[in-house]
Amino acid sequence: MLSVHLASGRVEVRRQPLPRVPEGFARIRLLAAGICSTDLELQRGYYGFSGTPGHEFVGEVVESGERVAGEINLACGHCEWCARGLGRHCPTRTVLGIVKHPGAFREFFTLPMHNLHRVPESISSEYAVFIEPVAAACEILDQVKIPKGDSVALLGDGKLGLLIAQVLQAHGARVHLFGRHRDKMRLVEKAGITTEVLPKKLPHRAYRWVVDATGSAQGLRAAVTMCEPRGTVIMKSTIHGLVMIDTAPVIVNEITLVGSRCGRFEPAIRLLASGKVNVADLISDEFTLDRAPEAFARAATKGVLKVLLRPPR
Amino acid sequence: MLSVHLASGRVEVRRQPLPRVPEGFARIRLLAAGICSTDLELQRGYYGFSGTPGHEFVGEVVESGERVAGEINLACGHCEWCARGLGRHCPTRTVLGIVKHPGAFREFFTLPMHNLHRVPESISSEYAVFIEPVAAACEILDQVKIPKGDSVALLGDGKLGLLIAQVLQAHGARVHLFGRHRDKMRLVEKAGITTEVLPKKLPHRAYRWVVDATGSAQGLRAAVTMCEPRGTVIMKSTIHGLVMIDTAPVIVNEITLVGSRCGRFEPAIRLLASGKVNVADLISDEFTLDRAPEAFARAATKGVLKVLLRPPR
Repeated sequence: MLSVHLASGRVEVRRQPLPRVPEGFARIRLLAAGICSTDLELQRGYYGFSGTPGHEFVGEVVESGERVAGEINLACGHCEWCARGLGRHCPTRTVLGIVKHPGAFREFFTLPMHNLHRVPESISSEYAVFIEPVAAACEILDQVKIPKGDSVALLGDGKLGLLIAQVLQAHGARVHLFGRHRDKMRLVEKAGITTEVLPKKLPHRAYRWVVDATGSAQGLRAAVTMCEPRGTVIMKSTIHGLVMIDTAPVIVNEITLVGSRCGRFEPAIRLLASGKVNVADLISDEFTLDRAPEAFARAATKGVLKVLLRPPR
Repeated sequence: MLSVHLASGRVEVRRQPLPRVPEGFARIRLLAAGICSTDLELQRGYYGFSGTPGHEFVGEVVESGERVAGEINLACGHCEWCARGLGRHCPTRTVLGIVKHPGAFREFFTLPMHNLHRVPESISSEYAVFIEPVAAACEILDQVKIPKGDSVALLGDGKLGLLIAQVLQAHGARVHLFGRHRDKMRLVEKAGITTEVLPKKLPHRAYRWVVDATGSAQGLRAAVTMCEPRGTVIMKSTIHGLVMIDTAPVIVNEITLVGSRCGRFEPAIRLLASGKVNVADLISDEFTLDRAPEAFARAATKGVLKVLLRPPR
């Protein structure tokens, strides 16, 4: 079978034998996968990754023919974290395509059966690829209670930012998206989201809720400035390396910062099935697995949103 | 009257006329005041402060003879923050002895009447000086709901750390205090608090609640390391300048960081009246106002805890 391989910044396509299926696991045939910013970071060498990436996917269980998406954290299933339903924080977990478990950019791969979620027919395979990132956006609502009608400032108009904007707006918040790219932001305006190019003079103490999805230290600092006293900043994107932060406004204004990562799949599947989150406009391109090097290059191009990978016909 | 004056790092004692009393304000005769770490920072030139410091005090309202402590934020009283009972975050506030309102290290000073709280007879004046810092410790419990019986790691055995330890223990938490000074930590052991010199190899992902009261960037980083996934780090001390933080563990472990500052006086007065917080052992020395330069030097000496100032007899 075809398998994408990352090592030392190079994207290669290799032929490999079918993966062995451990007990409790399913063999999954890839239908479609998405290249995420994390995959591009793995390519750049963060986390010292080498192997097959890919964690946004929809596939077919070989044995049953069922179409599934899959949670990416492979938890031990019997520690206190797993018992609390937080296998995403299991200390011995591996992570599909990120930590010690080969990813989904292959014709066939494996995941524990209990990681899988059936994808309803109303969600096409190319849209189902977004279940994982939409779940990450939904995670915000699992962590903090944002009352319907509240204004939320969202910084960052990348792939994740555009999903978060729609998820929070669908929840009933009034999202004000601050980005850098008018063309990207226009994609979510029809959902009723207010958009604005981030001004030099930031709104000060202006929002009770601020989400940082910029992936930059500058974005996080702007989020703290824009947050009102006793307000909450949700840190929704990893910033590489050490970040310089002025803790004084955080303490003086008693701001809460909430780190946020992967989410449950159930609300994401419901949202995508409802049609309230438009992902069609977020797909920039599609390649077959054998053209993975091109696909990665395209995904890394400025202005490009989601690039999909599909098995060759 | 005698008045302490800070300018360019020098502590001076000056003679000044009695302060003017604006409408709605009380003239207060100082009974006792405490030198706080913030006062030492003002002396070092943080915030470009020049004037009379002092915000931990107990005094007597000249007109009524009532013994009072006073909240230090002078709020406008009619903005949305004040309406929400959060005058401590009023954007146009001044702050006693810190921002644009002369402080309490004087024989007489003024505060708005509604800032004042009657001090019950059961709290002696030298203990009443601790109402303000105990309120700052209590603020944690206003911001986060720590269940009784939960373990809390507390970093920092300075004045504020020792108060926080006792306040959280009195609340019903099981406090594990990590500090650097065995002699200081010993003072709170009789309250049932576990104490330990901070080990080189930090406990990792070990506490759901971690309070950083070290005032150092290193302390904040240690707090994040020690916090378990989905746990909360309370940032209880200002760190000067920019702080280098690795945001990755905050996001990957979905940690919540909560900035925390001044608190309401009511719970602090109740706690001190109950005798559940021992402040007697935290008083290192006492000087009259005319010896303020000595008092500041003493307060800045390693190993010294609270230094009190009193009016000359």
